[in-house]
Amino acid sequence: MKEERIMLTFKRASSLIKLIELAKTTEASCSSRFFWLNPHSNKLQTNVGYLVAVPIRCITHFPNQRQDEKHKVLPLDVGPVICGTAVSPQEKLVVVSLSDGSENKYPWLWLRDNCQCDRCYSPALHSRTIDWEHFDINITPANISTQDSILGVTWSDGHESTFSLPWLLERGFTPKAQDVWLNEIYKLPRVPWGSADFHKVLRRFSFSHILESDTHLLEWLEWVVTYGLAIVEGTPNRRDQNRRLAERVAFIKKTHYGSACFREEFEVQAKAGASNLAYLATPLQLHSDLLYYEYQPGLNMLHCLVQAAGDEEGKNQFTDCLRLSQILRETQPDVYKMLSTTLVDWSDIGAERGEILTFDNLRMLHGRTGYNNGRSERHLIGVYMDNDMVFSRIRVLREKLRRSPAN
Amino acid sequence: MKEERIMLTFKRASSLIKLIELAKTTEASCSSRFFWLNPHSNKLQTNVGYLVAVPIRCITHFPNQRQDEKHKVLPLDVGPVICGTAVSPQEKLVVVSLSDGSENKYPWLWLRDNCQCDRCYSPALHSRTIDWEHFDINITPANISTQDSILGVTWSDGHESTFSLPWLLERGFTPKAQDVWLNEIYKLPRVPWGSADFHKVLRRFSFSHILESDTHLLEWLEWVVTYGLAIVEGTPNRRDQNRRLAERVAFIKKTHYGSACFREEFEVQAKAGASNLAYLATPLQLHSDLLYYEYQPGLNMLHCLVQAAGDEEGKNQFTDCLRLSQILRETQPDVYKMLSTTLVDWSDIGAERGEILTFDNLRMLHGRTGYNNGRSERHLIGVYMDNDMVFSRIRVLREKLRRSPAN
Repeated sequence: MKEERIMLTFKRASSLIKLIELAKTTEASCSSRFFWLNPHSNKLQTNVGYLVAVPIRCITHFPNQRQDEKHKVLPLDVGPVICGTAVSPQEKLVVVSLSDGSENKYPWLWLRDNCQCDRCYSPALHSRTIDWEHFDINITPANISTQDSILGVTWSDGHESTFSLPWLLERGFTPKAQDVWLNEIYKLPRVPWGSADFHKVLRRFSFSHILESDTHLLEWLEWVVTYGLAIVEGTPNRRDQNRRLAERVAFIKKTHYGSACFREEFEVQAKAGASNLAYLATPLQLHSDLLYYEYQPGLNMLHCLVQAAGDEEGKNQFTDCLRLSQILRETQPDVYKMLSTTLVDWSDIGAERGEILTFDNLRMLHGRTGYNNGRSERHLIGVYMDNDMVFSRIRVLREKLRRSPAN
Repeated sequence: MKEERIMLTFKRASSLIKLIELAKTTEASCSSRFFWLNPHSNKLQTNVGYLVAVPIRCITHFPNQRQDEKHKVLPLDVGPVICGTAVSPQEKLVVVSLSDGSENKYPWLWLRDNCQCDRCYSPALHSRTIDWEHFDINITPANISTQDSILGVTWSDGHESTFSLPWLLERGFTPKAQDVWLNEIYKLPRVPWGSADFHKVLRRFSFSHILESDTHLLEWLEWVVTYGLAIVEGTPNRRDQNRRLAERVAFIKKTHYGSACFREEFEVQAKAGASNLAYLATPLQLHSDLLYYEYQPGLNMLHCLVQAAGDEEGKNQFTDCLRLSQILRETQPDVYKMLSTTLVDWSDIGAERGEILTFDNLRMLHGRTGYNNGRSERHLIGVYMDNDMVFSRIRVLREKLRRSPAN
C-alpha cells in the first residue's frame, strides 16, 4: 500500500474505517507508522499527536477487541491540512502553510536530501540510498504543488519528490515539533518528586507479569523512566533472576564490578578485603554509581537475595536529583546559600527478599543504612543497563503493542 | 611507608636512590603513584610531569633491569618546592606559592573534604570515608604550615590534614593542570592528519605480539587513540579471532547488530534480504556507525576474513573528522562556503585476509568501494568497544608497565 493511497482515504468515512482495520492487522503497513487509537482519549492519533483530518463521528469495528468493545463511537478531531506553499529563495526554504494557521519551513536542500522516492530511499533498509558524491548542492525547486495534503516538488534537474503531511510534521523544524520528537517520541518526559509524593511514586510491579507480558514490561519501564524508581516484586530467590528481568529489556552493561561467577552481574555483600565502600556493612551515603565512566549506566537494578536482620538496617535510601535541580533552578540567585542550607529529603526503602529495586542511576541518588554484619548476610545481585537499551525497548514495545494490543 | 617519609628523602641522594628502588619493587607503595623513570628523557618523573626536587646527578641501581643497564646516570632536574602559603578568607582559598614563581589555589572546603587522614580516606578502598551528614561546611583553616613541601592544615575544630606537593599538583585547579590531567593522564591528545600523511599514520601491528605482550598492546591502543587508525596483521583466519584481540582490551559492546551465531560480534557480508546498507555489495559512503545511539561505540574493529576479488573492490575508505573540524575551525567565518566547496580527502585501505582494521568510530569516517558479489564473498567480523574500555586499559597498562617494564 502506498502512502499516497492512505492520504486519499481520509476523505471518506468508509475508507477511514478500512484504514483503521489495516493499521490494526497489517504489521508491515506504512499506515501503522502514523495512526493508532489512543485508549485514553479514544481518538485516532499519529506519532506527533497529529489528529486525522476527518470532520465526522464514525462507528468502526476492531477485530482484535473483546466482544463488548467491538463497536465504539470514535470522536475524531479535525486536524490541519496543507492550505498553501511558498518558496523563500533568500533563505532557501520551502514554506508549508496549514489550515490551523501554523507554518512549517524546510530547507530545500534537506528536502532533496531526504527524497523518499525509490531511487533515493529504501524502506527495507530504513536508509537513504542517495549518492552524495554526485549530489548537486546548487539544486533548486522548479515547481511546488500540493494534492490531498501531499507536498510535491519538481527539482531544477527534473527529479521529482513527494512528502506526506504526517511525514513532514514528524520531522518539523519548529522548536515545538522537535521538543515533541525528543521528549515524547524518542525519549519520555521525567516527573520530579519530593518525599511528600514518595508513597505515590513507589509502585510495585510483578516479576512474573513482566516476564510474561509486554504490556507489563512497558508499564514498568515507562514508570522507571518517568519517576526514576520502581520495585519489582515476587522474584524467585535465585541468583540468576535479575538477569532474566534484564534480558526482557536488552543487554546488561558489563563493568569492572562484574562478579567472579557472573561477569555481567555485580554482587553487593559485606566481605573481607573489600575494594569498594559498597562491600562494607557501614552506612553508604547518597551517591550515583560509576560517575567516572564516560558512558555512565542509566538503569540500575538491585535484586535483594538476603536483607539485613534489624528493622532499620540495610535499608536503601533514595533522593530525586531531578527535584533537587528543579529547586536549584527556581532559586538560582542564591545557589550557594541554598546548597549550603537546604536539608535534603530522602526516602528509605526496605527492599525485602524477592524484590528488585530498579532505578535511574543518574537521577536517583541512592544510599544505604548500615547493618550488623554478624547478625545478617545482606546480599544483593545487581545489573546495570545503558539508557540506549531502555528507550529502545520502550519504543519497540509501544510500536508492537499498538499493532497488537492483546499481548 | 608513609607519604611524609617519601618527601623527606628528597633531601639526600642516598635516600632518593632507596626511593627509586622502592618505587620499582613495591607494587603497593604510595611512592609508585608519583614517580617513575621516563625512558625517553632518563628523568625521574611524576604523573603530572613534575620533576623531583633534587639538585644533583646521581648513580642509582635498578634491580629489575638487564645487567648492562644496572648502573645509570640520572640527570635529575630541579623541580619547584613550596616556598610560601597564605589564606584568602574572602574567596575561602588556601594559596600555595612555589619556588618557580607559580601559585596554586585550593578552596579550603575542598581540602577539608579531601583530607587524606585515616579517618577521612581509605587507600584500600580508593575512597573518602568522610561522613557528609556531619560535615561542617562553615569550617575554616585555623593554622597552616609547610615542612619539606608538605602542606599541613589545622582546622577550626582541631582536625588535622596534610597534603604532599605532588598530590596537590596532580589535583591543581589551574587550567594548565586540569588540561594535563584531562588530555594527557586521563585521556590522550589526538593528532589530526590529512591524506598527505596517510602513509605515516597507517601503521601495522602484529596480532600475536599484541596477544602476548602488554607493551605491544599499549603501543597499538595509543596509536589508535592518537591517530584514529591502525591495522593489526597476521590474524588467524578464523571467525573467533577478533574477539581474542578485543578481550585483550576489555568488554565488547553489544549492539542490535550482533550476529545470530555470535551475539556480541557483527558480520559484514553481502546477503539476501539485507536490513542495512552495509550488507549489500554496493559502495558504502563515508559514515560513522551507530550515531543514533546516545552511547556511540568508540573503537571499531573489522577483521577481514575474505576480501573482494577485484583490485579496486571492497576497499575500506577513511577520512579524519578531526582534521575536517580543524579546517572548519580555522576557516570559521566562511563555514558554509567551505562546507560546500571543499573537496574531502579520503584514503583507501585494501585490508587483506588476516588483517583487522581498528579505528576510532567517532573520528574516522569510513566507507567502502563496491564489489562484484558474484565473484567474491567478502566477509568481515566486527566488534565495537566503548572508549571507557580503551582508555581504562591504556591507564592500567601504563601503570603496570611503569612498575614492571620487562613485560
